[in-house]
Amino acid sequence: MRIDIVSLFPALCKGVLSESVIGRAWKEGIVDLRLVDLRDYTHDARKTVDDKPYGGGAGMVLRPEPLFECLQDLRTPEARVVLMTPQGRRFDQPTARRFSQLSHLILVCGHYEGVDERVRQCLMDEELSIGDYVLTNGAIAASVVTDAVVRLLPGALGNDVSSEEESFGNEPLMEYPQFTRPENYKGMKVPEVLLSGNHQEIAAWRLEQRVLRTVSRRPEML
Amino acid sequence: MRIDIVSLFPALCKGVLSESVIGRAWKEGIVDLRLVDLRDYTHDARKTVDDKPYGGGAGMVLRPEPLFECLQDLRTPEARVVLMTPQGRRFDQPTARRFSQLSHLILVCGHYEGVDERVRQCLMDEELSIGDYVLTNGAIAASVVTDAVVRLLPGALGNDVSSEEESFGNEPLMEYPQFTRPENYKGMKVPEVLLSGNHQEIAAWRLEQRVLRTVSRRPEML
Repeated sequence: MRIDIVSLFPALCKGVLSESVIGRAWKEGIVDLRLVDLRDYTHDARKTVDDKPYGGGAGMVLRPEPLFECLQDLRTPEARVVLMTPQGRRFDQPTARRFSQLSHLILVCGHYEGVDERVRQCLMDEELSIGDYVLTNGAIAASVVTDAVVRLLPGALGNDVSSEEESFGNEPLMEYPQFTRPENYKGMKVPEVLLSGNHQEIAAWRLEQRVLRTVSRRPEML
Repeated sequence: MRIDIVSLFPALCKGVLSESVIGRAWKEGIVDLRLVDLRDYTHDARKTVDDKPYGGGAGMVLRPEPLFECLQDLRTPEARVVLMTPQGRRFDQPTARRFSQLSHLILVCGHYEGVDERVRQCLMDEELSIGDYVLTNGAIAASVVTDAVVRLLPGALGNDVSSEEESFGNEPLMEYPQFTRPENYKGMKVPEVLLSGNHQEIAAWRLEQRVLRTVSRRPEML
């Protein structure tokens, strides 16, 4: 799978995506990550990508020309082009799974006060937000999406079971509490059922914990 | 303000947080960011932080000892300790604003299948998730929270207006469409009202666009 991230901060994305699981998947060629600097598609000495908004207001807006040129360059017939913006639909696990089936994903990062509306109307297949909070730039959001998608690619996780058995994986239930050694830490003990070796009882306890936790923390998931 | 990020991937956080707005705020001392490697709180040659879950199951669980030691070391009387986990409450802009008023925030990153439940019960003031999707590790989530919080600190954004006039800033409305030069790009023109110079009409058009966009994209916000 190929993922292009178009931003003004390719170094930021590189910092996140070169580590750990994703860094390994990138090195091994499981994902072909391309960090594209939008400034490479400007033609003036100052590499201007933004300008003041028509109608006034604070901040700067990304001009249409660099993005039109950039996407003309990157787009393949299979590509899905996604704008990262607080105005977008909320990114979630089903979207991550859908993206992981694509052969080419292009993530375009907003910055400043936004991008020219003509870019949104003409170039984007969809618009996504990673959550209801404001970030300094979309490169962080694109890195989050890339992480969530790449870990689902075959071979990306050492242990393929891990990508299935998780919150938001397949069932609308939160995870059960986890305990590891030591069995007794400063007087706090691991629940006896987990030490019993009785797999049926353990499974029943874990399911109960998942339901209890979901009811108390995220009742709307049920 | 001081923010400590406790993780197994301090280099990842450094990659995100050294760039752009946050990198500048860090250099200028607006935020005192400390990237703490959890492995510094182990005592064996292999720097073991995790172990198999009691009761069986895939993956590894963070052991209690390194986190207990680490937080004993980092915690100040004013500190708020937050665990990044898919099981947490969803991070949002009001939470970012609340955190930006603190003098000391400690973000603890999960990894593998999770952290030992005793850590959650004893050490955490709250648990947060940045969204309903699975990431390879919590360091990315902690970087997102840090970005959203630091940009709200006085002086972090060059232009203080920008942090107010945004989606999720103060009003439950999405942003209006933005246009910048050129006025006519490949036959696509900027709406005439924005060129009119009539501030009242521009304000009315923008408010209308915000309402329309909110109704069509995120009706539950209203």
